[in-house]
Amino acid sequence: MTPRPIAAIILAAGKGTRMQSDLHKVLHPVAGRPMLLHLIDSVAALAPDRSVVVVGAGRQQVEAAVAPLGIATAHQAQQLGTGHAVAQAEAALDGFDGDVLVLYGDVPLVSTATMRRMLDRLHGEDAPATVVLGFRPADPGAYGRIIAEGDHIVKMVEFKDATAEERAQTLCNSGLMAVRSSDLFALLARVGNDNAAGEYYLPDVVMLAAADGRTSAVIETDAAEVAGVNSRAELAGIEAAWQATRRARAMAEGATLVAPETVWFAHDTQIGRDVVIEPNVVFGPGVRVADGVTIRAFSHLEGAIVGEGAEIGPYARLRPGAVLEPEAKVGNFVEMKNAVLGRGAKANHLTYLGDAEVGAGANIGAGTITCNYNGFLKNRTRIGEGAFVGSNSALVAPVTIGAGAMVAAGSVITRDVEPDALAVARGSQEVRSGWAARFREKMAALKAAGKR
Amino acid sequence: MTPRPIAAIILAAGKGTRMQSDLHKVLHPVAGRPMLLHLIDSVAALAPDRSVVVVGAGRQQVEAAVAPLGIATAHQAQQLGTGHAVAQAEAALDGFDGDVLVLYGDVPLVSTATMRRMLDRLHGEDAPATVVLGFRPADPGAYGRIIAEGDHIVKMVEFKDATAEERAQTLCNSGLMAVRSSDLFALLARVGNDNAAGEYYLPDVVMLAAADGRTSAVIETDAAEVAGVNSRAELAGIEAAWQATRRARAMAEGATLVAPETVWFAHDTQIGRDVVIEPNVVFGPGVRVADGVTIRAFSHLEGAIVGEGAEIGPYARLRPGAVLEPEAKVGNFVEMKNAVLGRGAKANHLTYLGDAEVGAGANIGAGTITCNYNGFLKNRTRIGEGAFVGSNSALVAPVTIGAGAMVAAGSVITRDVEPDALAVARGSQEVRSGWAARFREKMAALKAAGKR
Amino acid sequence: MTPRPIAAIILAAGKGTRMQSDLHKVLHPVAGRPMLLHLIDSVAALAPDRSVVVVGAGRQQVEAAVAPLGIATAHQAQQLGTGHAVAQAEAALDGFDGDVLVLYGDVPLVSTATMRRMLDRLHGEDAPATVVLGFRPADPGAYGRIIAEGDHIVKMVEFKDATAEERAQTLCNSGLMAVRSSDLFALLARVGNDNAAGEYYLPDVVMLAAADGRTSAVIETDAAEVAGVNSRAELAGIEAAWQATRRARAMAEGATLVAPETVWFAHDTQIGRDVVIEPNVVFGPGVRVADGVTIRAFSHLEGAIVGEGAEIGPYARLRPGAVLEPEAKVGNFVEMKNAVLGRGAKANHLTYLGDAEVGAGANIGAGTITCNYNGFLKNRTRIGEGAFVGSNSALVAPVTIGAGAMVAAGSVITRDVEPDALAVARGSQEVRSGWAARFREKMAALKAAGKR
Repeated sequence: MTPRPIAAIILAAGKGTRMQSDLHKVLHPVAGRPMLLHLIDSVAALAPDRSVVVVGAGRQQVEAAVAPLGIATAHQAQQLGTGHAVAQAEAALDGFDGDVLVLYGDVPLVSTATMRRMLDRLHGEDAPATVVLGFRPADPGAYGRIIAEGDHIVKMVEFKDATAEERAQTLCNSGLMAVRSSDLFALLARVGNDNAAGEYYLPDVVMLAAADGRTSAVIETDAAEVAGVNSRAELAGIEAAWQATRRARAMAEGATLVAPETVWFAHDTQIGRDVVIEPNVVFGPGVRVADGVTIRAFSHLEGAIVGEGAEIGPYARLRPGAVLEPEAKVGNFVEMKNAVLGRGAKANHLTYLGDAEVGAGANIGAGTITCNYNGFLKNRTRIGEGAFVGSNSALVAPVTIGAGAMVAAGSVITRDVEPDALAVARGSQEVRSGWAARFREKMAALKAAGKR
Repeated sequence: MTPRPIAAIILAAGKGTRMQSDLHKVLHPVAGRPMLLHLIDSVAALAPDRSVVVVGAGRQQVEAAVAPLGIATAHQAQQLGTGHAVAQAEAALDGFDGDVLVLYGDVPLVSTATMRRMLDRLHGEDAPATVVLGFRPADPGAYGRIIAEGDHIVKMVEFKDATAEERAQTLCNSGLMAVRSSDLFALLARVGNDNAAGEYYLPDVVMLAAADGRTSAVIETDAAEVAGVNSRAELAGIEAAWQATRRARAMAEGATLVAPETVWFAHDTQIGRDVVIEPNVVFGPGVRVADGVTIRAFSHLEGAIVGEGAEIGPYARLRPGAVLEPEAKVGNFVEMKNAVLGRGAKANHLTYLGDAEVGAGANIGAGTITCNYNGFLKNRTRIGEGAFVGSNSALVAPVTIGAGAMVAAGSVITRDVEPDALAVARGSQEVRSGWAARFREKMAALKAAGKR
Repeated sequence: MTPRPIAAIILAAGKGTRMQSDLHKVLHPVAGRPMLLHLIDSVAALAPDRSVVVVGAGRQQVEAAVAPLGIATAHQAQQLGTGHAVAQAEAALDGFDGDVLVLYGDVPLVSTATMRRMLDRLHGEDAPATVVLGFRPADPGAYGRIIAEGDHIVKMVEFKDATAEERAQTLCNSGLMAVRSSDLFALLARVGNDNAAGEYYLPDVVMLAAADGRTSAVIETDAAEVAGVNSRAELAGIEAAWQATRRARAMAEGATLVAPETVWFAHDTQIGRDVVIEPNVVFGPGVRVADGVTIRAFSHLEGAIVGEGAEIGPYARLRPGAVLEPEAKVGNFVEMKNAVLGRGAKANHLTYLGDAEVGAGANIGAGTITCNYNGFLKNRTRIGEGAFVGSNSALVAPVTIGAGAMVAAGSVITRDVEPDALAVARGSQEVRSGWAARFREKMAALKAAGKR
């Protein structure tokens, strides 16, 4: 079988009123990535010749989101139904001749494998005119029903038009469809809007094909895969489903999740083998964790690369550009941003490492702050191999602490420190005997006076 | 229909032994507020003429809790049953003539709407003598059963006295009741204690009314609404039910909860539209969050007001009196207490802002501490618009940093800084060449000696 | 009944390939303790005469784990089935004569009570030759079935050999067994390997005993108790089951868990009465919490002892050796390690207390760091009763702050401070008028230049 050209039409023109949001519904993120882009990723794995997103309400936002991907958009000026929406894509397909998948921007979890099954069926036994994706929800409710014999569709019927017998059928129409382009637009041209809503319904093409003596086939999938998003609660449901799948994969691949339900992955998180993740860990986008890493409770990682055997947390925050080389250790209440912690180096407590490079085996004391920002520019701090930065120090960038150098606790370092030297930069200690006792007496007197 | 006078009698005399607590059962909080006060809030929405809480065991605690609300209490010295408890409230009702609701301090989630339905039914079709609130639990277990025809009660029967046929009925008695005051106390006077426990049971008034040829009606509600608390596990169940309802409301109103099951609201939390709440956020009482705010993971807010478009967390702690003006930003490991962060101002890392005012657009460097307490008094720190406080600075209050002023990193500021000036308050840096290398040798020698 | 000698044989020779781990399956922790040791703890409560762990793949790890407990191991060089594995233990039992329990290292939650029931049944009515532990899973799937009349076993049958009628039976074989030592090894010697896998199956002893005219009995238990671990997902399931049980116990004993599903206990956590635990608290091993303690959200405790009425968190991290005396208070972003906080003392914000002793009533200001490590040695900080350490101070150990002494904010303390004295150790403040304004102009010019 030679590969057939594939195009995808993704409907994203709906208002999404129930989201109560200024952000377009299909741009709400799942696992840190707009749901529309999840779908586009799955489509991309089919290597389609063309993809068209049909936009309408809030089109500027959607156009801006897909433009960088080089995906075309088509404008549905009026919301006249799904059939009408698909028809708007014809011009953007620009004479494309091949198989067309009709997808929905708010049904983001459909897998590449399912899309492939739909396309394969279109050219399988008896080569149906259309392939419809069906599912059997726990509660079929008011979904349109598919009346089928085997995988052949006898009838597509909207719930409100269905007989009691038809309503008793549990196979429902997801709306997703595969159709040859030559059929699709010809059939759509014949779809009417003689119904209560005055809309052009995409599923009508199935019955129009049947009127021509042509068959249609149904492919079934899990209800979870075709779950749609119309409200924030449904968005949360999609997120939960995505996370559950991802967690199961992490465990199957050899990570321990002490409490899987409390670990949130991003769409692109990479986790190695024998990684241990304690409860309550959040991954933002762009994180890669090597084998044998321990991530303790309450850690938050975004855009970070973590080397083999490193230890993180609890309460560690790794921000974009954080790199831990193997065996490095980042402890509690430590923030790293655009900073490298060398092999075996440690920053265990209450520290901010921003725009910094820390050499192998260096020790960053509790309360160390790299002062990387002067209100206008970011500057770098360089700390050499084996250096020791005493607690509660401030390193005012740009500054370099040489290899093997030490910084005395409580210092404010503003000039470079040569290798193997000690730098001390703090005030000298004065003591005033009895001062505290006198102060207490004065305060007590003040308080007593205040109460009179 | 002219409004009828309403009184509420809330029973709260029980010991709550299974709570294993020194705190009275009805004072255990749900969503940060004692469960009894949740119920009183719902009653208050009916604008009752009188409310009486019947107290007994641990009465001092309950009396102290309701006294500020101007709610009367009545003392049930001996625990002789629910009928007896209600009878104790008669004196405190002080001649009240109208409709009486009987409620339970440990059944806190009953809604105002349900109370209203009960009262309305009391004066509805055929004007029953009593209205009982029934429910159908998943497992009816040993609950007393209501034998009803339509909404007319044929019989109230304790589980232990019920026939097999009666036990097969699933409509159970919640104990909640609406009765006219004129009927209530007259009927109660006729209730006997001729039973195994020697107690006076409130539900007996239904059968006594029936003996007078008067009807009683049952109103049904969800089991969740009449869930009671007898143990900490049941308390956790009530909390979970309350939170689930509140989370659903936040989402319906346009907030994204990435992981709804990990967000805990307080009884009075106010959340705007297009607010995004990441996993693991805890709201204590008194928080108001405007539209477009992002609250990142692991944040904790109490008594805080957050302006439009502000960003919070991860790991931000806002304590009472924290105010973020629009577009302000509070980052990781930052605590604010009784402090205002002006429009667009930032405190991104490892900072404590207590008793402070920060002007619009100011930047508070990492590790900044406002030293607001001298062991006796709290003093204020004022930071002007557009000021820049360098990292790891200590601002010793009372102190003012003028608008546009800068504080050098690592400074301890004890005197006011004029606008547009730079303040530096730190020790000068000295370097001792080779010191660190010699120190390492000495330490290595010591360690070697220690091992011999 | 005189006590009978007891021995336990624990099978732990399996590879655990599906764990995808370099750590032996039975050493993966549940509630912070290797699952094998949970089982050994439950066995220990029976005071057995001997325990033998049968090792194979990865034996070095398992041997190292049980050696400190004085438990013998036996080596199963080839994996020839459960019957073969048990037979390998005979030598290590060293002539033991008594009752033998056969257990599995990857079935860790079996209780002492269940073990006791099995042993008791072995000597009960009609004294069966073997006692098998059965269970009824929600989905019996491919488990071996036990065909029983009353508690008498008629037949043990592997799923693949079972008839449809036998498969319809829901009583399944957990594999756990109690047998007299004299019977066990005699029966095992007769077990053959004439089956598809060529393995020696332990359950065959039941049918061999029956062939001798001897009975076997089945004891039933909950499926949860005999859940086994073959994957990280199942490990997470065991952890969840363990935690659910532990949380219920904490609540029954009088602790409030606001959100029980977000509190993780360790195997040995001790929690008092009227303890309140907010959402998201993690206990590592070795924690003891007295009555009336409040543990706020996002706290993490390991190896810590917390006195009555203390307050912890939110975001407090107590590491091993942390001791809070009664009424002490540890606040947000505070880490304690090997440190004592005296009665009523407070460390409320952004502090590291390591290797320190803080006297009663002392106040540790925000941002205080004990500098306890010089890169080689740990040194102690001593803070006397009623002392006041100003914010953002560094205390360079070894150092002593006397009782009632004060440390000025922002000080670096390197020498002891006498009681009731004030110590100040910071730079003096200089101000450069207009400097910040000029700096801003310069920066703005630079930026403008950069854009050209």
